[in-house]
Amino acid sequence: MENEFDSVFPKSYVMKGGEGPHSYAQNSTGQKSAIEAAKHHLQNAITKKFDLKAISASSENLICIADLGCSMGPNTFIAIQNIVEAIQLKYQSQNQSTPEILVFFNDQASNDFNTLFQNFPPNRNYFAAGIPGSFYGRLFPKQSLHLVHTSAALSWLSELPKELTDRSCGALNKGRIFYTNAPSEAYDAYQRQFKMDWEAFLQARAQELVDNGIMACLMNVINDIDFKVDLYLGKDFELLGSCPMDMAKLGLIQEEKVDTFNVPLCSLISSNLDLMKILETSEDFSIEQSEVMDNNCFVIPNIEYFVSRLRAVLEVLIENHFGVGIVDELFERFTEKVREFPKIMDVPKLKFHLFFVVLKRKVKA
Amino acid sequence: MENEFDSVFPKSYVMKGGEGPHSYAQNSTGQKSAIEAAKHHLQNAITKKFDLKAISASSENLICIADLGCSMGPNTFIAIQNIVEAIQLKYQSQNQSTPEILVFFNDQASNDFNTLFQNFPPNRNYFAAGIPGSFYGRLFPKQSLHLVHTSAALSWLSELPKELTDRSCGALNKGRIFYTNAPSEAYDAYQRQFKMDWEAFLQARAQELVDNGIMACLMNVINDIDFKVDLYLGKDFELLGSCPMDMAKLGLIQEEKVDTFNVPLCSLISSNLDLMKILETSEDFSIEQSEVMDNNCFVIPNIEYFVSRLRAVLEVLIENHFGVGIVDELFERFTEKVREFPKIMDVPKLKFHLFFVVLKRKVKA
Repeated sequence: MENEFDSVFPKSYVMKGGEGPHSYAQNSTGQKSAIEAAKHHLQNAITKKFDLKAISASSENLICIADLGCSMGPNTFIAIQNIVEAIQLKYQSQNQSTPEILVFFNDQASNDFNTLFQNFPPNRNYFAAGIPGSFYGRLFPKQSLHLVHTSAALSWLSELPKELTDRSCGALNKGRIFYTNAPSEAYDAYQRQFKMDWEAFLQARAQELVDNGIMACLMNVINDIDFKVDLYLGKDFELLGSCPMDMAKLGLIQEEKVDTFNVPLCSLISSNLDLMKILETSEDFSIEQSEVMDNNCFVIPNIEYFVSRLRAVLEVLIENHFGVGIVDELFERFTEKVREFPKIMDVPKLKFHLFFVVLKRKVKA
Repeated sequence: MENEFDSVFPKSYVMKGGEGPHSYAQNSTGQKSAIEAAKHHLQNAITKKFDLKAISASSENLICIADLGCSMGPNTFIAIQNIVEAIQLKYQSQNQSTPEILVFFNDQASNDFNTLFQNFPPNRNYFAAGIPGSFYGRLFPKQSLHLVHTSAALSWLSELPKELTDRSCGALNKGRIFYTNAPSEAYDAYQRQFKMDWEAFLQARAQELVDNGIMACLMNVINDIDFKVDLYLGKDFELLGSCPMDMAKLGLIQEEKVDTFNVPLCSLISSNLDLMKILETSEDFSIEQSEVMDNNCFVIPNIEYFVSRLRAVLEVLIENHFGVGIVDELFERFTEKVREFPKIMDVPKLKFHLFFVVLKRKVKA
């Protein structure tokens, strides 16, 4: 049993903690709009696919839910409330009393759980625990979960592919921090890692979910990027990536540090079709439902917000790679570049999609 | 179900977080020696009282353990490891494979869970979660726990009795911060609160433990204090309490703030006999084992350590009451007083006892 607890995924990407101006808690409106967009589908999935009889067989009086990659709130509470409401309605419609509900909020051990716990909704109608660790490995006992939810978190790779970080391999993505407009080798390395991570994720959850247990995953995806127009998805990362390179030229940071810095996010290129291919080969899960939705409903009010939104997500990552002390200057430079190219803030113009998929744990033979 | 999650115990006493020189993590050797003293009894209790057949009836493949009032480590991991080892030995001795184990680490939501989670033992052979909230209310689903452990935490009252904090009642314990050498009304108020808290604690755990589930509690107790000698238990609190009074006389803090400040600890006067009386009236638990042990094995190496040890436990409480900014001066003044009366550091001379009691959840009719 020992090895399961030693995650083989040592890298830790977490959102900026606390509740300050650059914190994730204050800069996650986009993620909130995604959860709102998915609310109807999520509740619908519970109504149609969450099989009370099958669940009751494993536990009559308790439903265990996990939100994986919950960060420190507040979006995680909205998603969980949507789920709990749907479960309660379902039991009520069958004239049954709702079992007690225990929700596990999961994220990396370096996530700001203190903020999460201090913001637990005071009138919540569920018991709430935190469970630290990488969801690319085992986190829960066997067959202990009835419903798993995850929103946006699976966009983060467990780690960067070695080809991108190892200078002896030539640091494939030199001069860039992301895979848009990158050499195909870099793009492919990202895609391979994405596939491996999803397979590890499914394998762990297959053990933890009860038979007929449900898993609802929400992710950003796009199906095509047209690099010929001047605004496309990933352009913000390209603009941001040019800042450390400028700083390296000025001798403010080491160039070799810049060469091996890449953002371990893969959502923007993973089309729902690529993901469906991975899911269709699963022996443990059946695909019960899948939806592609627009997520263009959030508007960027000003430059500060646009910059803080990216900073909340990337600050910890940048500090871990370059050391403390460069973040302020880097984002000041980025702010200047956004000021010169304000069109980049027109997020609703991007073909930005949400992919929502509901999986069911097959009954083990 | 709603109200169970809104704790009626709003006060929050937590140890000093982080890993700095005044942190609890660096200043809890006394608590560690208590856990070591109880190790044998704890493992013995599991061997003799943890009934596998009765447990298996409720869950064949999973054992859920809770450590209540865990603080941020490292002692909590030692206690849990002792428990897990005993459980594994027990299964091995019966030629059964050990079920998976899930440990819930509980403390107030304001506890430093970030430090706790980042220090989870990497090679642990159990799944680990955190569960924030007061253990004087419900924390877990019904019949979801097989074994509850708590060490030292039940010395903390859920809140101070109103008689001690309400100036309109005359602030019963004016001029003191503790109940040693206090008016009997103050002493009685402490004792009443202690009894009420234990009853609330037992009521919550009675719902959460499975039938035949085990609860092992370790507490500091003494049976008598001789106030006629110059060193007795509680003397350190009296000396510490004189510091804010000195500061009030100098106008550094408000006198009325001092009048209503009391330390919500009750272990030092609650003799094991008083506690046994409360336990014996429980309809839900049977007393399976009880032991009184010495806990005089830890030595205070120097003044700094003696002061830090108290500071780790009281700093958050003092800051919450008096505001930030007085803690350094208060403990500097305390250090000076200890220097004048070094005899106070002779902790092994005190009649300091540990009380270890094992309770079993009676089978519900």
